[in-house]
This record gives sequence, C-alpha cells and structure tokens, in this order.
Amino acid sequence: MSLYVKKFGGSSVANAERVFNVANIIVEDYKKGNDVIVVVSAQGDTTDDLIAKAREINPKGASKREMDVLLTAGEQISISLLAMAIEKLGYPVISLLGWQAGFNTDSNHCIARIKNINTERMKNELDKKKIIIVAGFQGIDKYDDLTTLGRGGSDTSAVAIAAAMKADRCQIYTDVDGVYTSDPRKVKFAKKLDEITYDEMLELATLGAQVLNNRSVEMAKKHNVELEVLSSLEKKPGTIVKEKVKMEKILIRGVAKDMDVSIISVIGLKDNPGIAFKLFNALAQNKIEVDMILQSVGRDGTKDISFSVKRSESENAMRTIDSFRENLEFESIKCSNNVAKVSIVGAGMESHPGVASKMFEALYDNQINIQMISTSEIKISVIIDEKYADKALTVVHDKFFG
Amino acid sequence: MSLYVKKFGGSSVANAERVFNVANIIVEDYKKGNDVIVVVSAQGDTTDDLIAKAREINPKGASKREMDVLLTAGEQISISLLAMAIEKLGYPVISLLGWQAGFNTDSNHCIARIKNINTERMKNELDKKKIIIVAGFQGIDKYDDLTTLGRGGSDTSAVAIAAAMKADRCQIYTDVDGVYTSDPRKVKFAKKLDEITYDEMLELATLGAQVLNNRSVEMAKKHNVELEVLSSLEKKPGTIVKEKVKMEKILIRGVAKDMDVSIISVIGLKDNPGIAFKLFNALAQNKIEVDMILQSVGRDGTKDISFSVKRSESENAMRTIDSFRENLEFESIKCSNNVAKVSIVGAGMESHPGVASKMFEALYDNQINIQMISTSEIKISVIIDEKYADKALTVVHDKFFG
Repeated sequence: MSLYVKKFGGSSVANAERVFNVANIIVEDYKKGNDVIVVVSAQGDTTDDLIAKAREINPKGASKREMDVLLTAGEQISISLLAMAIEKLGYPVISLLGWQAGFNTDSNHCIARIKNINTERMKNELDKKKIIIVAGFQGIDKYDDLTTLGRGGSDTSAVAIAAAMKADRCQIYTDVDGVYTSDPRKVKFAKKLDEITYDEMLELATLGAQVLNNRSVEMAKKHNVELEVLSSLEKKPGTIVKEKVKMEKILIRGVAKDMDVSIISVIGLKDNPGIAFKLFNALAQNKIEVDMILQSVGRDGTKDISFSVKRSESENAMRTIDSFRENLEFESIKCSNNVAKVSIVGAGMESHPGVASKMFEALYDNQINIQMISTSEIKISVIIDEKYADKALTVVHDKFFG
Repeated sequence: MSLYVKKFGGSSVANAERVFNVANIIVEDYKKGNDVIVVVSAQGDTTDDLIAKAREINPKGASKREMDVLLTAGEQISISLLAMAIEKLGYPVISLLGWQAGFNTDSNHCIARIKNINTERMKNELDKKKIIIVAGFQGIDKYDDLTTLGRGGSDTSAVAIAAAMKADRCQIYTDVDGVYTSDPRKVKFAKKLDEITYDEMLELATLGAQVLNNRSVEMAKKHNVELEVLSSLEKKPGTIVKEKVKMEKILIRGVAKDMDVSIISVIGLKDNPGIAFKLFNALAQNKIEVDMILQSVGRDGTKDISFSVKRSESENAMRTIDSFRENLEFESIKCSNNVAKVSIVGAGMESHPGVASKMFEALYDNQINIQMISTSEIKISVIIDEKYADKALTVVHDKFFG
C-alpha cells in the first residue's frame, strides 16, 4: 500500500466529462488499496474569469488580500465538484480547502510561501479510508486570512503535501505525457525521457519547457520527493524526476530554445577595477534579471561587456545603463532583440568534454553563427540569430538524439 | 455614532454597476461616522449556476457537505468584489467569510442553524475603523467544515450579526422599497407601511408576501433587533419591523392572497371521540402540513372535517386519509384545488371586533362566496374560488385602505 499525491491542472477538470476522467484515474489507484490525496486547480478559465471581474471593479488597485479571497473561490468550486464525481462513482471522499488541509503560509498575499502543513486533518481522513481532494494554490496566514501561492501554486501545494505526508510519489498530471528531449511540436524526433534529475528539470523549466513550475521542483529536490509528470488523458508511464538517474548512454536530457532574449552590449568600458560590479549592481537595483554575461577585451585597453536579459526588460536595462553613463565611462551601448537562445541540458555532460564541440559542430554544419556562449555544469547555451532558432533546435537535437 | 448591519441580496450585486451602487450606500453611512457591517448574498444567478454544475456531475446524489463547499464559493466571490469596490472609493474595508466572522453552526449541512457567533474578529476590525463585508448564508461546524443556512440564509446571517453585535438597526435592502398593505403589482391602492410588528410580518410572510424570510423575522423578534426593509435602488425610508408600533387609525397591516392552497373535505365521519386526533395524526406522520381546519356537523349524527394544505401536498393527503379509511370510518372524501386564500393581517384587529365583518361585507358586496373562514388574534383568512382571488384582494384592500 502506497500513498500517492496526484495533482490535476485546470484544463483536466474543465468540464463534467473531464472531472469524471480525473475521478476514474483517482479511483483506479484507490481500488488497489492505496491512499490517495489529490490536489486540483480551478476549472478551466475560472481564475481568468474571476480576475476579469476584479478588473471590472478596480482595474489596478484591488488589494492583494481581497484578490486572494476572490481567487480561492475557484479551487473551492473544483474540489467540491471532483468530490461529487467520486461520490457518484461510489467511493468515500472528502474535499478540503487549503486551510482545512493545514496549509499555513506567510502573509504575502498572492505570492505567499508555505510555512508548514498541519497534517492532522489529512491523516484523520486517510485513517477513515477517504480519498482527499485538496484545493491547490491556497493557504491561510496567522491572521486567519486566505492566501494564494502565486504562479504554479497547485504544483507547489502537491509537492508540499507529498513532503509533509511522506508520500511515495507525487504525480503531476498534465496535457503532455512527460518531459521530452525537446518541444515535440517543433522537433520531429523529440523523445520522451523516462527519468530526469531535479537539476536538469530546473534548467529545462528555466529555458521555457514549462511542464513543471520551478518552485515545485526546487521544493521536491529539497525534500527528496519523487515526482512523476504524466498525462491525464493517456494511460501510460510518464517521466520521473528525482535526485539521481541511470546515466546509460544519454549525455544530455534536452534541447530547448528561448525566444524571450535580448543582448545588450556595452562597448569600450574603461578597464578599471570594479567596473563590472558597478554595471550589474545598477541593473540589480532596478530589479533587472541578467542571464548570460560575456566580457571581452576591447580596443585601446578598454573592455566590452555583453549580457542577456528578457526582451521585455531590454529598454529598461538600456535606460538604466545610460543613466549611469558618467559613473561607468563607456563609448557606446547597443541592444539586439532579434536573437534567440538555444541550450542543451544534462548532468551527463559534466564528465564528457566532447558535448560542447558536438553542439557547435551541429550549428557549424548548418552555417548557424554563434554570437555568445555560456556554459554551466549541466547546461550549454548559445545565442544565435532568432531566424535560425527552430533550425538550430532541430539540428542540435538530432545531433544528440537522431 | 451607530452600528448598522446592512444586508444586500444577490440581485443588488449582480454586476459591477450594482456593486458600486451598494458600495455607495455603505460608504454614505460610514462617512457620517457610523460603524457598518454588511452581509451580502452571492451575485445574481451564481448560486443557480453552481447548483447546475453539481447536477451535471451527480443529478441527485451529491452529498450535502460537498454542496455546502460548492455553494459557499458564491458569497466568497461577492464579498471580495464588494470590498474591492469600497477600496476603489477610498475607504478601509475587509471581507470576512462566514467562519472568519465567527459563525458557528450545527452540522446539518444545507440547513444548518447558528449556534453562536464569535464576535472577536468583527469587533477588532470595527476598532480599526474598517467597513466589514460578511459572506451571508454560511458558517462552519465543530469539525471545521463549511455549512450553509438554507433558504433566506443571508437575512438570517444579518439579523444574527445585529443581535450578537447589538447593532442599532438591521437594514434589509431589497428590490421593493418596503412592506406594502398588499402586492403593489396587483392592488392599485396598495400603501407602503411605515411600521409593522414582528408578528404581523410573520403572518404576511407566511401568506406569500416574501419580503423577509420568516426565520430571520423570528430571530429578530427573539433578540428584539429592529429591522428595516428598504430599497437598494431608491433613497428613501423603508418599513420598520419591531415589537410594538404606533397604532393610529390603522387596524390591519396588509391584505395577501395565497394560491398554493387545496381544501380537502372528509365527509360523514363517525362522531367518535378522538376522530380529529386520528385524522390529523395520520397527516402529521406523513409530514403533511395542515393550515386551516374547519369542523361542522354532518347528517345523521356524523361530522364533516375540512382542512387546507399546500396544493402540492393534496394528493399525498388524499392518499394518506384513504389508507386510514378503516380506522377513520367516513363516507367520502373530496379535494378542491381551484381555491385561494385571502387574508387580512394586523395586530389592531384584536380589539376591534368589526374587522371581520368589514372584510366579509367587502366580499358580499362583490358577490364572492366564502367557503371557509379561519381567524387568529392578528389574522383573518377566507377560502374562496380561485377565480375571484385578485378581485377579492383588491376589494378587501380598498375596503380598509381605499
């Protein structure tokens, strides 16, 4: 007998038919004698509809506390409907709101962090052999006020329950059947992975492969919760996310592209100590997140620094640097928006120095010019012209998996 | 400085415009230095929409516990939106769910009764000079499960808060501007009452003038909470409901008709002791509510008993009596469905014996035959042919108010 925590997103419970589909998945594991705790998001567009209602009343100024009161109603509706479907199938079930399930959070409304989970109620209900349906995304603070966990909150709720209840596995059901070596809609030979490490998953998520929310993967890593990403529509094993996986011959786990990139280059910086600190400190103070950084020797004893930011941040970054012009002393500054980042991720590459050259070879063979390179222990990213992004994704992927 | 409890129904907050209308009413009293606690129902058709969702999942069998989880989401949405509107107007406000406002109930899901209200949180928020918006209709039981109060629950919530917080007045805002001497859509000269007693209000509500739910009036009477029924759309005084009112020249408060009536006559009952007991005991055991009862002498030492029931109960009542035929010993039994009840209500009639004859005169003048008569201290009801119901309503009303 095992304890499974299962999480279903909003599209999985969008209408009565899908609610029953989910109910059947739950009941199937319960019938085998397992304990099952389910975390569910708000149905389909419910959250968007509620946000629209709030915008109609107060387009900008609605307080975060009241937003949380409003939005948590969405999961309240979906948990009761899912419980009713399981009742209809004839199995014992109880729905619990975040606070009933013991989710204590801080008071940062709309982006609250879980402080602890009081598992007493959930344990009591499991003792009564009930299937438990928990409202994801929500908790309560020390003032007894409702809070929400922010983006991807239901994934976080599921992992937190799995950790607190020492579940055997936390299963995240989605509309894809697992984690792929690349986007299957773009890359013909993309393969589903049986296993992936937490760190690899984190890198892939950061690179735009948003199957799992990073915060939930970080929490799973911290508490060593075994995750499974699987389909709510097809009945087959998904991808397991855990600390260590069998290496076999696979060096890399995935290839991803990210179009939300701009490169900013500061040319002819005076080569004084602390110049890089001054530059990036100015950006940090304006809350601009910098991803890749490249420093090169410029002409006449100056240096050039290039870095990547999200495209939506590029103007802000340009303005920030320009306003520090006197302090920084540089010749010119330029911004390219028509670039893309292509990355390969895999814990295997650490001990295989040939990985990078294999990637570069694939790009060279296809006449794709590399503008910047950045490497970490488990990732190699290159910046290229955005018009070659899809081609690069395919040729790099096929070099490793073809 | 006074404390007002204001209750707004679902149609009063059905859309953003109406929400702001309500917000303005609230703010107006708050600006004068008063404390304001507001009870609000779910927006417009929200409750019906949620019920439809439940029916789609499980047409009959949804558990009452899960129905309560589902339905309480409706008020959760409306309280947060109303709070956002008041924030937009620039006033301090906080929304509270039933359990946050301290509503402790028994565990009879869907028809829970309030056990007590822990007023600590509401008092704290008033101390902070906040306007409080409370979700009506809902509470929590000793297991920390959500409950609802059943029909008219929001009125009950408002009166309960007014009683627990010792409010100066409990104002029930509706789409009419008060309690009328008769249905203004039917009776041309219907007049709005300035004041009415709890007992009169209870009789009128029972007779189908559903401005206020009986349970809330009973609670108001018990705790001596002064009620005011007034319009959420027009700014003018409504009708005050309280223990004693100035009598002036008004003998009766209202004239009402009730079409949901059937008369069942049991003819030729043996005149044995206990026959009435046996008859009505049989009906009571089948949970059939009997309203008026009339016993008359029949032929040959027998007696006839006629009584009124709700029309939907008439078949059941006939069946019940028929199944006791041996025990009861009667000749025949008949049922008339084409009848109506017209009643006059007023604490003034107690000491004015001419009231009944004045009513009968109005009916006689218009050739309306009376089939049954029933009187209580503050009410006289007659059963007539249903085709004369509207005419009777008008002529009786005009006899007293014309």
